[in-house]
Amino acid sequence: MSEPSNTGTPDFSNWSCPLPLADYPTIVMGHGGGGKLGNELVEHLFLPAFRNPALENLGDAAVLELSAGSFAMSTDSFVVQPLFFPGGNIGELAVNGTVNDLAVSGADPKFLSASFILEEGFPLAQLAAIVQSMAAAAATAGVKIVTGDTKVVERGHGDGCYINTAGIGLLRQGITVGPHRAQPGDAILVSGTIGDHGMAIMSVREGLEFESQIRSDCAALNGMIAAVLQAAGNAVHTMRDPTRGGIAQR
Amino acid sequence: MSEPSNTGTPDFSNWSCPLPLADYPTIVMGHGGGGKLGNELVEHLFLPAFRNPALENLGDAAVLELSAGSFAMSTDSFVVQPLFFPGGNIGELAVNGTVNDLAVSGADPKFLSASFILEEGFPLAQLAAIVQSMAAAAATAGVKIVTGDTKVVERGHGDGCYINTAGIGLLRQGITVGPHRAQPGDAILVSGTIGDHGMAIMSVREGLEFESQIRSDCAALNGMIAAVLQAAGNAVHTMRDPTRGGIAQR
Repeated sequence: MSEPSNTGTPDFSNWSCPLPLADYPTIVMGHGGGGKLGNELVEHLFLPAFRNPALENLGDAAVLELSAGSFAMSTDSFVVQPLFFPGGNIGELAVNGTVNDLAVSGADPKFLSASFILEEGFPLAQLAAIVQSMAAAAATAGVKIVTGDTKVVERGHGDGCYINTAGIGLLRQGITVGPHRAQPGDAILVSGTIGDHGMAIMSVREGLEFESQIRSDCAALNGMIAAVLQAAGNAVHTMRDPTRGGIAQR
Repeated sequence: MSEPSNTGTPDFSNWSCPLPLADYPTIVMGHGGGGKLGNELVEHLFLPAFRNPALENLGDAAVLELSAGSFAMSTDSFVVQPLFFPGGNIGELAVNGTVNDLAVSGADPKFLSASFILEEGFPLAQLAAIVQSMAAAAATAGVKIVTGDTKVVERGHGDGCYINTAGIGLLRQGITVGPHRAQPGDAILVSGTIGDHGMAIMSVREGLEFESQIRSDCAALNGMIAAVLQAAGNAVHTMRDPTRGGIAQR
């Protein structure tokens, strides 16, 4: 995929559309119907990007092997505008958001679903860029996108692309983090600078200019959180999704 | 909730809005921000309707206990128009669709996530009716709605209400159903009359009139499928979601 430029508007010119997707350079209603066009999207776009055995089954549901234990399940829909912004795009956000919701619950994120609500006329090159970003984000976070769905809404409805992700993670034995464990006097650990993502979005939306460009700090934090939990265990009381300006307390 | 009338337009007059939701009879942007208004929706609408221990935790993710084994995971987004139609509404469809996607994969559906993309100005009474329907459908199907999300998009974007559900089901040991097992000569079992749901939607959209009114046959089929699998086991080769006109072969 092309790296989003500084203005948040990426260059899609180097994307070459695989046949037969080239017949439809933009999303048409038929891409959402579960028929031939929808299958072409799956076969030539989603499968090559997300490829893994559970997804390749292409049944009505993915089959997953899990050991016994406690699991975390989370979901988020993403409706961010613009879809591409300095430092990321809606696809990375959708993967990292749910990965982080699971991670801050003390879970090791494993599997994601991805569901797209696309607007008729949405450029396929933009969808491809979003999907490539999701695949890269999932690989970085160590999660698999195992099942998905595509719906198309008529032109003028939707905002090009909405994405829902839901995820399953394996909870670590003996570790409990939760809002109810926060106590007065807890020290607060902040995972990074605060507000970068929100300000990056606002700067593009409102045409704000700063001395230096503010980029979204959208990232998967499950690796960092795993290290904190391994070092501190139940001394960590509660965490909130740090991509949304949250905090870690202990 | 009110039963949708024959025209697909339900009567919301008998819904009494719990305080403090009464302050906002329609969805405003703040309902999606994860702040005070969003919390009011959760506390006064979603929690009372869906109440279960996993949801009540209200963390970034739900905590679930599962025994070891194989699981199925599925997701679908629902963008049906109109939202209320003869025989059902988008909420029942969202629950039953994912329940059935899991069931036709040979799984026993257990847990659902529910994520709403609401349009600014959407009447809260309609959202309440949808949510009540989802709760009733989940109870009928024997699944729990354990985690969720609400986003709001600006007026003129979206179509009132889009819903995504993702679900997890427990696969039955020793039972394999899948498209790859279909064989020439398989007998085809049809779970009911074909096309009722699609025709019910079209009849409202296009103002078609028939001698008798066609109602959506939207329903959870996990109970029926469990009975078939118990009786026939691996003699069943593949199934497709019967709410979408699918088939069962053996």
